[in-house]
Amino acid sequence: MNIEMIRAARERLTGHARVTPLLSSPFLDELAGRRVLVKAECLQHTGSFKYRGAKNALSALDPDVRARGVIAFSSGNHAQGVALAAREFGVPAVIVMPSDAPALKLTNTRGFGAEVVTYDRATEDRDEIGARLATERGLTLVKPFDEPQVIAGQGTLGLEIAAQAADLGVIDAQVVVPCGGGGLTSGVALALADAAPGMRVHPVEPEGFDDVARSLISGHHEVNPRLSGNICDAIITPSPGKLTLPHMLALCGPGLTVTEDDALHAMAQAFLRLKIVVEPGGAVALAAALTGKCEADTVIAVTSGGNVDPEVFGRAMAML
Amino acid sequence: MNIEMIRAARERLTGHARVTPLLSSPFLDELAGRRVLVKAECLQHTGSFKYRGAKNALSALDPDVRARGVIAFSSGNHAQGVALAAREFGVPAVIVMPSDAPALKLTNTRGFGAEVVTYDRATEDRDEIGARLATERGLTLVKPFDEPQVIAGQGTLGLEIAAQAADLGVIDAQVVVPCGGGGLTSGVALALADAAPGMRVHPVEPEGFDDVARSLISGHHEVNPRLSGNICDAIITPSPGKLTLPHMLALCGPGLTVTEDDALHAMAQAFLRLKIVVEPGGAVALAAALTGKCEADTVIAVTSGGNVDPEVFGRAMAML
Repeated sequence: MNIEMIRAARERLTGHARVTPLLSSPFLDELAGRRVLVKAECLQHTGSFKYRGAKNALSALDPDVRARGVIAFSSGNHAQGVALAAREFGVPAVIVMPSDAPALKLTNTRGFGAEVVTYDRATEDRDEIGARLATERGLTLVKPFDEPQVIAGQGTLGLEIAAQAADLGVIDAQVVVPCGGGGLTSGVALALADAAPGMRVHPVEPEGFDDVARSLISGHHEVNPRLSGNICDAIITPSPGKLTLPHMLALCGPGLTVTEDDALHAMAQAFLRLKIVVEPGGAVALAAALTGKCEADTVIAVTSGGNVDPEVFGRAMAML
Repeated sequence: MNIEMIRAARERLTGHARVTPLLSSPFLDELAGRRVLVKAECLQHTGSFKYRGAKNALSALDPDVRARGVIAFSSGNHAQGVALAAREFGVPAVIVMPSDAPALKLTNTRGFGAEVVTYDRATEDRDEIGARLATERGLTLVKPFDEPQVIAGQGTLGLEIAAQAADLGVIDAQVVVPCGGGGLTSGVALALADAAPGMRVHPVEPEGFDDVARSLISGHHEVNPRLSGNICDAIITPSPGKLTLPHMLALCGPGLTVTEDDALHAMAQAFLRLKIVVEPGGAVALAAALTGKCEADTVIAVTSGGNVDPEVFGRAMAML
């Protein structure tokens, strides 16, 4: 895993992934007490950064292997990224989801052309189902974060940050990134270590689900005691990735945490001041910037996804 | 008024106005039955295209004249555009607003550094107040649309559409634009007539407030019978501009109209599929595309603003 892989990913993604804008508002600067630049990745295809990694991973496959199709386990943003990338290549995508996943997520994933295979969480083994399908059909598994080509794809977002910030004259900054398994955080950190060495990346997690922050302190793979019960569900994973943690240990500053209300408040400000729709998990980095958790003169906050249902969005707007 | 003025405006705005993204979603294509590209101008500084015209108009002023300050009549997006542009030049801005304007609009305009002067709609004459202030302080009036440098600034959006569409291989398209006084519509039409002659611009208005559509048929300045009572308030003006109508007559296709519910529905789809916040008046062109009012294989819809309060946005989300 190195910068060359990220640059190669950028070549593959050019003309496919969107170069998402770097937004700002004097009102947010005032709230944060510093300059805040927002990398609006919620505007990416499928509404999250996951398209970058999925598209790059599929692009990097041997064409004969790719033609047999891909498989992913996900009920959320990764599923949509893999589904769209597969459709663009005209190859089959099978997404394995729990049968109790929200209807909208199933519909959206099917809407991107994927075959959704559901399983009963209580009685069936997801991995067994996936392995059987993969073997029977010759499908290639696309992991959500612990996969070099996925990390490289997410890293292209870091290259964009470096270039867009440089256009504004910014070369030193604290870059805060919503963090689940660490694919986006480690990819961005690897990209910026090369392309903008004056910038320091910090993962941001929900309070009580700060496995990465604790792992950065202990140096080991810490585990979350719970995996549900937080509005930022899109970025809650059991533990940092095997591949991603070493990169984060080598390159990232301390992890930050925010509350659910902080995330909702950041969503409301993104609505009011930037005119973008951000999901709770995608808003935690902006939340860190707006609640005094950052120190640098310039903070670049990634808003990593916008797939939020109207009810939850309404809760955010009620904070205005 | 010509393409050279628009190109000069682009030079002035480079590094100031945002190049807003051209977004799309396969779900919107499916709804519309054709390819839909959305020029997300709600992501512009101050949340609307008005910043372009205001910034260009101020940039084009003689520095000594500009230094004395500017004045505008507006309770909405034009006010914010003028206020921010003036602050960036470090010159005073006076915005004349009715005293019953929504509190958020007053607060926002002051937040961009302007002095807000309120008047009583029932007992005071806005124009008299403005003329007195302008004379006393040597302020220059920045009109919202019937001003060549404002039209030229809005036209830069057309140049961006031409370039961004060409990157996608699109040279023929129907371009639908939310239309009030016609500054944006005529500016975009002038730009595209030169930069993308295969594209045809159509103004879009709310039903019952279609002065421009009727003026394009009659060839004269038709007047709206009412000026309130529609959710798309940002684009309701008495009549097309003196300067803008001749350009629209020369260059635009027939005007289109949509209902309030169409606009709310388009806002909901923009939330769900594009992750952008669009105000009702800014959503009418997308609404036209989504409700079968367009005919071309490719429609480019401008979402011209995102300054909407949470209550109205909630009404849109309730349509999902």
